[in-house]
Amino acid sequence: MPKMTAQEVEDFIFSHFPTANQKRHFLVEKLEEMRAQVRMIYHQRQLRPGGTISGPALMALADTAMWVVLTGMIGPVAHTVTTSLNINFLRKPDKKDVIAEVRLLKLGKRLAVGDVVMYSDGEAQPVAQASVTYSIPPHRE
Amino acid sequence: MPKMTAQEVEDFIFSHFPTANQKRHFLVEKLEEMRAQVRMIYHQRQLRPGGTISGPALMALADTAMWVVLTGMIGPVAHTVTTSLNINFLRKPDKKDVIAEVRLLKLGKRLAVGDVVMYSDGEAQPVAQASVTYSIPPHRE
Amino acid sequence: MPKMTAQEVEDFIFSHFPTANQKRHFLVEKLEEMRAQVRMIYHQRQLRPGGTISGPALMALADTAMWVVLTGMIGPVAHTVTTSLNINFLRKPDKKDVIAEVRLLKLGKRLAVGDVVMYSDGEAQPVAQASVTYSIPPHRE
Amino acid sequence: MPKMTAQEVEDFIFSHFPTANQKRHFLVEKLEEMRAQVRMIYHQRQLRPGGTISGPALMALADTAMWVVLTGMIGPVAHTVTTSLNINFLRKPDKKDVIAEVRLLKLGKRLAVGDVVMYSDGEAQPVAQASVTYSIPPHRE
Repeated sequence: MPKMTAQEVEDFIFSHFPTANQKRHFLVEKLEEMRAQVRMIYHQRQLRPGGTISGPALMALADTAMWVVLTGMIGPVAHTVTTSLNINFLRKPDKKDVIAEVRLLKLGKRLAVGDVVMYSDGEAQPVAQASVTYSIPPHRE
Repeated sequence: MPKMTAQEVEDFIFSHFPTANQKRHFLVEKLEEMRAQVRMIYHQRQLRPGGTISGPALMALADTAMWVVLTGMIGPVAHTVTTSLNINFLRKPDKKDVIAEVRLLKLGKRLAVGDVVMYSDGEAQPVAQASVTYSIPPHRE
Repeated sequence: MPKMTAQEVEDFIFSHFPTANQKRHFLVEKLEEMRAQVRMIYHQRQLRPGGTISGPALMALADTAMWVVLTGMIGPVAHTVTTSLNINFLRKPDKKDVIAEVRLLKLGKRLAVGDVVMYSDGEAQPVAQASVTYSIPPHRE
Repeated sequence: MPKMTAQEVEDFIFSHFPTANQKRHFLVEKLEEMRAQVRMIYHQRQLRPGGTISGPALMALADTAMWVVLTGMIGPVAHTVTTSLNINFLRKPDKKDVIAEVRLLKLGKRLAVGDVVMYSDGEAQPVAQASVTYSIPPHRE
């Protein structure tokens, strides 16, 4: 069972990432046992030439979605860090919000691994898939 | 819709990969629209020290499962080749068959990308997750 | 031999990526046969909690460095796109510029693959390593 | 400085991996500070249709090369395990030995990350590139 609600994790993002705070561009839409859904609000700033959402914006979304589900499951542990991220870009995203669905495949004491699939809002075909590994520092359970 | 049945793809493996043929250690259990399930029969030869199924055996399973779903969807096109593979090892597999569930996330004209999750037979927690990209040569549809 | 100079590629970034243009935070320091060096200017905006440069900032650097060496080698071809990126975070970066050294391992007609190693300015131990694949659209040579 | 010689690591492979032992198909050619070179002896068994060395054979080589440099650096610690592997296949390998050059990018207490570039014997262009992460169990230094 998650130790935090979606709203609590979202507030934790914004209290700890002041830049993100100003923008409020990641919303935690769902937080369940080992799963979460995170929305990245569309903003023109994310565009790259050709009018598509940039790779780095999708990578930031994948990383954030993984952080959300991990933080939701273990609580507000400080200093979890990404150790690796692998992303495949599948289709050109539309100029709209992107939804990330993340599933924790492993939640160990020291390492957590998640699989993230990203969709343009309302579309059935994914725009990108990522697997993300986080390192978890020693903490009180 | 797949262009081949599970049995046809399995036979195609064994006619083209004579080494695998001798062993019959990959079975195509399901082949559906953009999805497949492949079983790797347990054999002591796959073990590494510590008694666990080796990483290379799981990598071969991921690669084969992706090849199965791709071949099932596009038919017996020769010379599709793996261009990249990313695998995360999650848990020590049991000494038994490993089941790979693969989903094609993208099936383009030139590139296909699949997500593979592997389980020890009968277990709920995955032992490994892989994403695999194949290059598809020009062919008649 | 590269078809563009370091300065030409840098100007091409800024003419095509207006956001980056305002910031001028990527500098092309070297451009040689199949290799380049790109500097990401340190800015507080890149920080994440704990005072370290964020993962997404390093991913953007890896992606940009690969784009630089590719564009340098093939000229100003429009619509090259990242198809996959794998990054390993190795050490906490210092609060200073990060230098990316990229080597093109493959430059095919349709796909290019590069290996990127990133260092905090002046340090010997890398902070991250990435491999990046780009798709190249049909173009006049 | 490495804690073992190339010959000691090679013997350690063969004492621990009885299958590999029968075949002696991996040779440790160099072992230096944070670097190693491993040769995979060509054998028809590694072929896949089209006459090229199979992806799984190259993945096994990348994994072995990383294990060699890690074991060389930390000594014969039991139960180091691969946690992730990312490989890009760049060119069709020739029907001959493949040489892996591996560089340890990080050697931490719990995790080690290496970059492996593989060449057909005598060729200048790489056939594959891999990055490999190993988990290191607690051990006496």
